[in-house]
Amino acid sequence: MLDDLRAQVLEANLELVRRGLVLYTFGNVSGIDRQTGLVAIKPSGVPYESMHAGHMVITDLDGKIVEGDLRPSSDLATHLLLYREFPKIGAVVHTHSEYATAWAQAGRSIPAYGTTHADYFYGPVPVTDEITADDINGDYVHNTGLAIVRRFRDLDPEAVPAVLVAGHAPFCWGRTPADAAHNAVVLEAVARMAFYTTALNPECKGVSQALLDRHYFRKHGAHATYGQKG
Amino acid sequence: MLDDLRAQVLEANLELVRRGLVLYTFGNVSGIDRQTGLVAIKPSGVPYESMHAGHMVITDLDGKIVEGDLRPSSDLATHLLLYREFPKIGAVVHTHSEYATAWAQAGRSIPAYGTTHADYFYGPVPVTDEITADDINGDYVHNTGLAIVRRFRDLDPEAVPAVLVAGHAPFCWGRTPADAAHNAVVLEAVARMAFYTTALNPECKGVSQALLDRHYFRKHGAHATYGQKG
Amino acid sequence: MLDDLRAQVLEANLELVRRGLVLYTFGNVSGIDRQTGLVAIKPSGVPYESMHAGHMVITDLDGKIVEGDLRPSSDLATHLLLYREFPKIGAVVHTHSEYATAWAQAGRSIPAYGTTHADYFYGPVPVTDEITADDINGDYVHNTGLAIVRRFRDLDPEAVPAVLVAGHAPFCWGRTPADAAHNAVVLEAVARMAFYTTALNPECKGVSQALLDRHYFRKHGAHATYGQKG
Amino acid sequence: MLDDLRAQVLEANLELVRRGLVLYTFGNVSGIDRQTGLVAIKPSGVPYESMHAGHMVITDLDGKIVEGDLRPSSDLATHLLLYREFPKIGAVVHTHSEYATAWAQAGRSIPAYGTTHADYFYGPVPVTDEITADDINGDYVHNTGLAIVRRFRDLDPEAVPAVLVAGHAPFCWGRTPADAAHNAVVLEAVARMAFYTTALNPECKGVSQALLDRHYFRKHGAHATYGQKG
Repeated sequence: MLDDLRAQVLEANLELVRRGLVLYTFGNVSGIDRQTGLVAIKPSGVPYESMHAGHMVITDLDGKIVEGDLRPSSDLATHLLLYREFPKIGAVVHTHSEYATAWAQAGRSIPAYGTTHADYFYGPVPVTDEITADDINGDYVHNTGLAIVRRFRDLDPEAVPAVLVAGHAPFCWGRTPADAAHNAVVLEAVARMAFYTTALNPECKGVSQALLDRHYFRKHGAHATYGQKG
Repeated sequence: MLDDLRAQVLEANLELVRRGLVLYTFGNVSGIDRQTGLVAIKPSGVPYESMHAGHMVITDLDGKIVEGDLRPSSDLATHLLLYREFPKIGAVVHTHSEYATAWAQAGRSIPAYGTTHADYFYGPVPVTDEITADDINGDYVHNTGLAIVRRFRDLDPEAVPAVLVAGHAPFCWGRTPADAAHNAVVLEAVARMAFYTTALNPECKGVSQALLDRHYFRKHGAHATYGQKG
Repeated sequence: MLDDLRAQVLEANLELVRRGLVLYTFGNVSGIDRQTGLVAIKPSGVPYESMHAGHMVITDLDGKIVEGDLRPSSDLATHLLLYREFPKIGAVVHTHSEYATAWAQAGRSIPAYGTTHADYFYGPVPVTDEITADDINGDYVHNTGLAIVRRFRDLDPEAVPAVLVAGHAPFCWGRTPADAAHNAVVLEAVARMAFYTTALNPECKGVSQALLDRHYFRKHGAHATYGQKG
Repeated sequence: MLDDLRAQVLEANLELVRRGLVLYTFGNVSGIDRQTGLVAIKPSGVPYESMHAGHMVITDLDGKIVEGDLRPSSDLATHLLLYREFPKIGAVVHTHSEYATAWAQAGRSIPAYGTTHADYFYGPVPVTDEITADDINGDYVHNTGLAIVRRFRDLDPEAVPAVLVAGHAPFCWGRTPADAAHNAVVLEAVARMAFYTTALNPECKGVSQALLDRHYFRKHGAHATYGQKG
């Protein structure tokens, strides 16, 4: 069970490398086994080239290390808060992928400018408020998670599986590590196209509600028509 | 006959991958055998890495599946309408290639800024009107085709083998699957250079009619001088 | 002798492919043997993957084919005029490399914004006047060469081995095919950095005359100090 | 000892190639053995493909060649001045990496727009004053070093291990050749994201002092928490 989770988490980390989303040891993926509440997460600062499944660190939902000899990713507390607050997600991905990070640094949400966006994100990818000095000087990594959760007070994390942390970078999530990594890759493509779009047309209003609905529900929910039947 | 068409359609799909125009399972190519009116099209949501010619779905011009076990691309109805309305084209390509998509999202036609454009597209690559809520809520994929056809009321699809669907992405076409994929690759390069050009000179007027004529007819029509004689 | 020239011209054409400057069959390189006045040039529209030295077409300075079974590049007449008017150059390269082409399409010379530029180009890379309708409708390819030559009336083609043809794309040259291809690759990098620079600082004045002198003459002329002594 | 230094300097030079920071023979890395005061530096103008450790040139801190048959990099005097003035650094890297160079050409410091920046650079990456005509016409390469040192009069080179030389390009440094090359690679990523950020939000104020502190000291100093314990 944990071996399988570790393998999935490793594979999702490597997918980020293959897709050019991470530089050196940047970025991290975790996955959760909801039965046991155990989380597998990438270790901190280990090069991707020499990483193997046994390096993945197993913790419980309070961050207590259950298995593994290495320090977990320094972003662990953000991942754990998301698992506690968003009970339907099964994996979390954090990268500094360059266009999504630029939107985060600029403090701008990514508008739903087209159907590529609408196929994955049911509305803008929101940016959090700036983290306050108090929150930074306190339990910073945990407080980063709180800023995300506050931003989703009126949003459904299943319908919008990504967020931009202001001045920092994106977090994405999904049902499985592979799904969350897929969302991170698509987010970067969407962020890139949105960058070009706003340069070409700063007044661009983005897709209509009808188009957003049509594309999102084409790929999600009981009436999805995309892909091959299960 | 159909085996050959399937092989050509597969190969054109793979060309999109090699040229970096598609991400994951995005994009699709179809080709038509005008003798029989049968169309071969990429299946929906199948990874390119494991795709083979036998996966291509054969339908008639009304979308009835004639051969193949998989669901066809969800964009099938757009392809079919283009085959019915543009009787001289032999293949259709749809991608979300990033710069062309950005122009589509921005709702801007791509002006003929230079000879690279003029070698392939005899005038701007036009953007459709926005698809209305009624058209989205109705037979959306078919209606997308209608929006393209309306945009070409006064244009020759052979002279301008591409269109931008507003808020969505480009469709291209050509005589054969290879030709249509080639046009899609060039469109992305042209869209990229046009993006840089309008940033460098927002007032740029583009090529003169004389230069457009010279370059377009250098590669097309009875007096073409480019390449080796047949 | 001609075999060697053909091999050099082929190799320079392939360098453009390796460096990402050309798409499909775009671009062409020629070289001249000044002893005999014979020119070797890439054939028109032949894929780079299957190209070999024997495909290079040999012509005299008037464009008469002396050896080779294929049609020469459709830009031959521009190359020949440059050889006749710029007697010290030994090779010509034409590409539609994307950033240099964007500057050409925008009708803007590339300013000498930094030392990378100054190491290769002793002043801005100039853009020609627009080619007139008369010149386009007449002997267009030859007239393109005339527009370049007019632009260099007060410039030294050895000190500025590149030009942007307005609405079209760059031409570069050098002592040898390898040298001209090298200049084309550097021009594209310089055009890319100049694009970013003008976006970051539209008022940027570029390098001082002192810095231009220092860097240019560091790599050129009797007092060059860069690289290993011959 | 010197063999090891030569090997490290070679490897750091090759890392620049692998990461796409250098074109042709651009760029150079050196490293110093602080015990003996001997410096190993890349030779001038040698292609990376054929470079081996024995090509690295050994000089003393005054630039006298102690070992090696080749000319050292033409930027040697800048490297040496940095070693003399910044006694804690162990290696210097110079590249013309494209986005960092664009900021240098634009004469703009790179603001600390986000945590990626703050993880490596404790404040903006500063740009020097323009080098004066007198300094260019005098001992130019040495004077380039002086411009850097002047810019760091009130800055700690360990806390900000990079600088932009106005109109030229970046210099970076670090404890070892690998560390300095790593900083150069991250600087280019940071410069790229900062370019996108300022385009998306020209008024962007960047990270707060609290966030800068938190991220910088997360990776540096006695209380660092990133990575595995030594």
